[in-house]
Amino acid sequence: MIHKQSRPEAGRNPEAVAMFRRSIDRMAPYMPGEQPRAGERLIKLNTNENPYPPSPKVRRAVRSSARDSLRLYPAPRADQFVAAASHAYRLPSAMILAGNGSDELLAMLFRAALGRGDKVAYPVPTYSLYDTLAEVQEARAVRIAFGAGFALPLERLARARAHLTIVCNPNSPSGSFTPVAKLADLARALDGRLLVIDEAYVDFAADNALRILRRHPNLVILRTLSKSFSLAGMRLGLCFAHPRVIEALLKVKDSYNLNRVSLAAGAAALDDIAWMRRNVERVKSTRARAIARLRRLGFEVAPSESNFVLARIPGRDLAPVARLLRKSGILVRHFATPMLRDALRIAIGTPVEMRTLYRALAPLAASNTPRPRIRR
Amino acid sequence: MIHKQSRPEAGRNPEAVAMFRRSIDRMAPYMPGEQPRAGERLIKLNTNENPYPPSPKVRRAVRSSARDSLRLYPAPRADQFVAAASHAYRLPSAMILAGNGSDELLAMLFRAALGRGDKVAYPVPTYSLYDTLAEVQEARAVRIAFGAGFALPLERLARARAHLTIVCNPNSPSGSFTPVAKLADLARALDGRLLVIDEAYVDFAADNALRILRRHPNLVILRTLSKSFSLAGMRLGLCFAHPRVIEALLKVKDSYNLNRVSLAAGAAALDDIAWMRRNVERVKSTRARAIARLRRLGFEVAPSESNFVLARIPGRDLAPVARLLRKSGILVRHFATPMLRDALRIAIGTPVEMRTLYRALAPLAASNTPRPRIRR
Repeated sequence: MIHKQSRPEAGRNPEAVAMFRRSIDRMAPYMPGEQPRAGERLIKLNTNENPYPPSPKVRRAVRSSARDSLRLYPAPRADQFVAAASHAYRLPSAMILAGNGSDELLAMLFRAALGRGDKVAYPVPTYSLYDTLAEVQEARAVRIAFGAGFALPLERLARARAHLTIVCNPNSPSGSFTPVAKLADLARALDGRLLVIDEAYVDFAADNALRILRRHPNLVILRTLSKSFSLAGMRLGLCFAHPRVIEALLKVKDSYNLNRVSLAAGAAALDDIAWMRRNVERVKSTRARAIARLRRLGFEVAPSESNFVLARIPGRDLAPVARLLRKSGILVRHFATPMLRDALRIAIGTPVEMRTLYRALAPLAASNTPRPRIRR
Repeated sequence: MIHKQSRPEAGRNPEAVAMFRRSIDRMAPYMPGEQPRAGERLIKLNTNENPYPPSPKVRRAVRSSARDSLRLYPAPRADQFVAAASHAYRLPSAMILAGNGSDELLAMLFRAALGRGDKVAYPVPTYSLYDTLAEVQEARAVRIAFGAGFALPLERLARARAHLTIVCNPNSPSGSFTPVAKLADLARALDGRLLVIDEAYVDFAADNALRILRRHPNLVILRTLSKSFSLAGMRLGLCFAHPRVIEALLKVKDSYNLNRVSLAAGAAALDDIAWMRRNVERVKSTRARAIARLRRLGFEVAPSESNFVLARIPGRDLAPVARLLRKSGILVRHFATPMLRDALRIAIGTPVEMRTLYRALAPLAASNTPRPRIRR
């Protein structure tokens, strides 16, 4: 075994034992975006949170769950939250599973579908948690580059014949959207193999895949209340799929994965869709202005159907720009990968926050010395 | 592949594809104890909840976290809750990991330590979730029977040389307690292999293993706030271990496993240890009376260091008794396994609840016709 450790009882056994699976010892942990400490005043445009508060109904639901009944276990199947989702999305409860954020639902899907050496395929660049979850399962990640303009590499994804195929749509960090008809084509081409559409950002887009779910028993749609519903701090995710899929996921689910307060908060949020839509409209109009403004500052910005934009200066490493913004109290996301180091992912904040960003960004973007432009 | 499915596009591929791992398709899900639906008035002695409410400080903390900041992600390392645990248990933060209940921490341990075919050992009967988690990992469960009077089978556990060894202490469903010195012996005998002490019920016992942690780098101690702190509905667990263990577990942890409300509630609970201790004392004195009373009713009841007792009529299947109690509105736990079908696990409720139980139980226990007594 590779892992050495120093133990107080040294010498009792000359070969030290590995405590963990070798793949776990070797892997690097997933790095979430920076979370400011309490009291730190920053403009936070790095983890795609909603700049507007959650519905007052949610705040009321949280307050009124501060009760003696916290001593009792919550409903294992999240009845109250699932019933609200069933009503909001017009799906039977048997097609709905609630998660502690959609991250937990992703983890369940990987755990249920993938053994050592099994294939999981997804177009890249995308949400890097997929890489981490593949490593945990010792699965083979088949990472297929998006085409020009972030077009879905449908043929190559279908040919991979992976046990699990994932499309983040709208995609992060590109903000791009694959038309739902194309996703239906992919679902058919995968011929019974699981296709997960990670719709974390879909409320900010013009369309979504819910209407094609009934026709495709291999389709899984993931939603989160973190973005459009302004509830990243509450950890609420939803999985929509055929009952057979839900039943398999239940086997790898922690018995009581959502607490009593979350269940009440989730139900209240879904009971106030109008509040969510109002905030989404505000974000979308700020997004339109942000794209225009960032282009004037010299960035290439792809159209976005999400609550963030990817701003690029082709060929220029933008890590120093992200660092300088951090010094002015503005957090944006920079990914130190070959595909993304010339880009910043910027969440859409309030108009005031965005104006502060443009002011800070103007001198940094202007200092752009001409470089060979790398086309991708 | 074994799994057939009916698909609308039938005939496109004659061999249906398996969506999930074969072991997942085959396994039965873990069955938690019954949770009454909202409005159902039952005396709930089946899932070892605390009959007394959580601290008023917790209720205040929940209410005051109903804020706009719910739109922001929580601290990935649960800073606020871990700091409170660090203070309460006098351990550095690097030796503490917070979980969404101790069930999530158990799942992380299995995931990090066990690959297909790896061994996990534990004395039985015990918490049946271990079996389920082993199946999910396709690990080999080495189930070793407790000795007479639920004595720890130390030699056999050590000889199993499992990647992961677990001792639930106090054990469920027996309520029995293994002396800490014996656990230290086992930790040494395992020679660097992981030993998990699941101390979910330890606040109801006279001792705990915390003081031996520093000497044993392979030791992991799990705690939950579900029982003694009356917070089953909040999903709060703690893992104490050496930093190397914590670092490995972080790799398989969901990034934001605890929400903002849980973090505040957990910190507030640990800030009011006195409240917890008062409730524990009440439960312990009811427990002493319950043991005496159940023995007078004809049950064999082992000494208990937890907030439940195991009441047995050797050789008699007590499933019908549990069903009749259910009809009188009293839930207790019956396990339909060869080892446990002649027993009921009864959580300690309030004195009033217990008196209702004794009254309902008296005629049922009395109807005991003499049977061959099975010794174990």
